[in-house]
Order: sequence, then structure tokens, then C-alpha cells
Amino acid sequence: MNWLDEVKWDADGLVPAIAQQVGSNDVLMFAYMNRDALARTAETGEAVYYSRSRGRLWHKGEESGHVQKVHELRLDCDGDVILMKVEQLGAGAGLEAIACHTGRHSCFFKRWNDGRWDVVEPVLKDPAGIYK
Amino acid sequence: MNWLDEVKWDADGLVPAIAQQVGSNDVLMFAYMNRDALARTAETGEAVYYSRSRGRLWHKGEESGHVQKVHELRLDCDGDVILMKVEQLGAGAGLEAIACHTGRHSCFFKRWNDGRWDVVEPVLKDPAGIYK
Repeated sequence: MNWLDEVKWDADGLVPAIAQQVGSNDVLMFAYMNRDALARTAETGEAVYYSRSRGRLWHKGEESGHVQKVHELRLDCDGDVILMKVEQLGAGAGLEAIACHTGRHSCFFKRWNDGRWDVVEPVLKDPAGIYK
Repeated sequence: MNWLDEVKWDADGLVPAIAQQVGSNDVLMFAYMNRDALARTAETGEAVYYSRSRGRLWHKGEESGHVQKVHELRLDCDGDVILMKVEQLGAGAGLEAIACHTGRHSCFFKRWNDGRWDVVEPVLKDPAGIYK
């Protein structure tokens, strides 16, 4: 059986994918993959997602240079979620590497605090300097 | 503005939620929340999801005792994904705590290896002894 057939694709042919920083295990971002995106991710060793808004494959870093080098690819018990351990490349390194389009390390920079979402992570690089 | 209104619920009124072990940062599981589930999670400090298969709220651990104590609740840049840092309670502790219904620490126990999904995490407790 082809490993791609073991993935339970949803009605739109997509699967949620979580990217986690190798080493710190910080969760960097969450996006979707279709069959082609997952196949290319495994083939090239770089994270390729499917952009629902743009309706096409999205090689992470294609504009920003913030490519994700895949160290490990996992599938969950139900076969319907992908988890990747990645090395976030581009500006910065490790905890200073930028995965988020806002110029932050992680997309998960809002923390719940007593009924408010507080921004708790710094902008490491101005997005105007990332997307030209 | 109510913090629950800042979440971008999908067409089914759901938001994906990732649970990460506090300390190790291991990703334990992935599920969905509706508005009520997220409100209860914040209120009670224990992870409450929405079970799509059962069509109702699902207080994680209600059957297994494997409750998740929430240490931190985060929202991503687009406001459409929740990340939680949790302490996985029940049998075992820390890296031996069980989040997965298969009796494993994490639901992400299949690792891609040259075109195969290999099972790489041990069963810590027989599910027959968890769900009676």
C-alpha cells in the first residue's frame, strides 16, 4: 500500500499539518497539505503546503526565503493529521528563526490572559523587509 | 470585544486545536473545538474538545481519566488555530503520560521512513485497561 493512501484526506483532499521546530519543539505554524504537497515534502525534504486562499501548492519560503527543512514526518493514530519536525531556515536561527508572516518566530504569539489575547512574542524582522 | 469573537470559526463553527505537553513540548494530539468547548476549556482549566464523530462536547479524560490540565492557551496569527500547553494527567507522568486512545504518549506515533509509516512509540498501557 502506498504511504500516501494511508493518509485520510478530508472531503477537500486536504490534511492538517503542524510544523514544530526541531530541538525546542516549539510549534511554529499550522497549515494544510494535499496529496501532491505531502509527496513533494517527502521527496524534497522541504515543507510544501497547499494554500487554500491561493488555491495552489505553496513551497514555504518561496517568497520570504524562510524555507523549512524537514527532519521528521509523522502521522497520527487516525491517519488524518501530519506533524513535522522542521529546521526553520532564513533570517535568524533556532529560537530567532522566523516562521510567521508577521516576522515572529511562531504563528502562535497570542496568549490567553484572563479573557484577553495578549501578544507575547516579539517581531524579529519587519515583514516589509521579508516580502518585497 | 469578547475574546471568543476574535477566533475565526470555520463554516461548521469549529477551530483546530493542538495540545502540547508542557515541559517537553511534545505534540500530544490534535482535535477540534467549538465555541462552547473553548469557553469551557478557559473556564475550567481542563481541555474540552468537540467530538465531530459523536456530535457533542468531549471533556478529554471523561472516560479514560486522562484529563489535560491547561497551562497556556494560544491563538495563531490568523485567529483560526488554537495551541494549548497541557499537563497530561492520568496513568504515567511526563513523558510516560498517555494522551492517545491507543495507550501511547502521543497520537503522532507513526514516523515516515523511506516510503513507509513506522510505529515508533510504545504502548504504555493496554487500551482495554483504560476504557472499561
